[in-house]
Amino acid sequence: MAGTEKSRCPINLSLEVVGDRWTLLILRDMVFAGKRHFREFLQSDEGISSRTLADRLQTLQEQGIVTRHDDPGHKLKAVYRLTRAGIDLLPVLVDLGRWGNQYRGADPQLGAVAEELAAGGAQAIARMKMRLTSQHSSAD
Amino acid sequence: MAGTEKSRCPINLSLEVVGDRWTLLILRDMVFAGKRHFREFLQSDEGISSRTLADRLQTLQEQGIVTRHDDPGHKLKAVYRLTRAGIDLLPVLVDLGRWGNQYRGADPQLGAVAEELAAGGAQAIARMKMRLTSQHSSAD
Repeated sequence: MAGTEKSRCPINLSLEVVGDRWTLLILRDMVFAGKRHFREFLQSDEGISSRTLADRLQTLQEQGIVTRHDDPGHKLKAVYRLTRAGIDLLPVLVDLGRWGNQYRGADPQLGAVAEELAAGGAQAIARMKMRLTSQHSSAD
Repeated sequence: MAGTEKSRCPINLSLEVVGDRWTLLILRDMVFAGKRHFREFLQSDEGISSRTLADRLQTLQEQGIVTRHDDPGHKLKAVYRLTRAGIDLLPVLVDLGRWGNQYRGADPQLGAVAEELAAGGAQAIARMKMRLTSQHSSAD
């Protein structure tokens, strides 16, 4: 029955959390550009507004995809890091990048990164996940 | 410079087209449930409105992801089919399904489909793409 109970389709459940352009662009910035600070996300080419950014970061925290910590070097700054669940969204980003490269006239250098990761299959993804896990661990 | 020129990041270019929950749910219905008619999409559990559905189908056509044909069996009905570009979004859907299965308490049976496709790697994806290509060819 349409809309009478919550859909437990796994694709729908994912889309309820990350089915939004800005959310996935924030994750892209964390995964591929190593961004961690609010101001860094604001500077991306797509021009996210600070209101949208704050809203999406809040949701990402609530959903356990990023964590927020005080930056030990800057009392006023917060550092955002990916959780394991956030890092496990890497394949979605890689596939979106590959499709954009194939069908949307993307920048060739950026497209090549997605192609290379996709062509490397599970092993390339696993290596990149390991790198992200060490970068986003709470050790620093 | 933020926002001053169009971002040619491949992930962003994809998200400009499919970075929307409803758009991806329509594609899910075409890929995994074999839906082709307006009324069928309306009946999905997530309860898409007919206005949103019409809007997203229009965008999908304009972007070359689905085609719209008259149904030879029903003069009043239209049939929607996936193009090659639409079929090539399969990996994105599979990865979203896998993540939803791992982190969002998805229906186990539906989750198993995503896990199986993901575990089958490039070969399983290629087989499913071939099946979709024959189903969505304009031969019928």
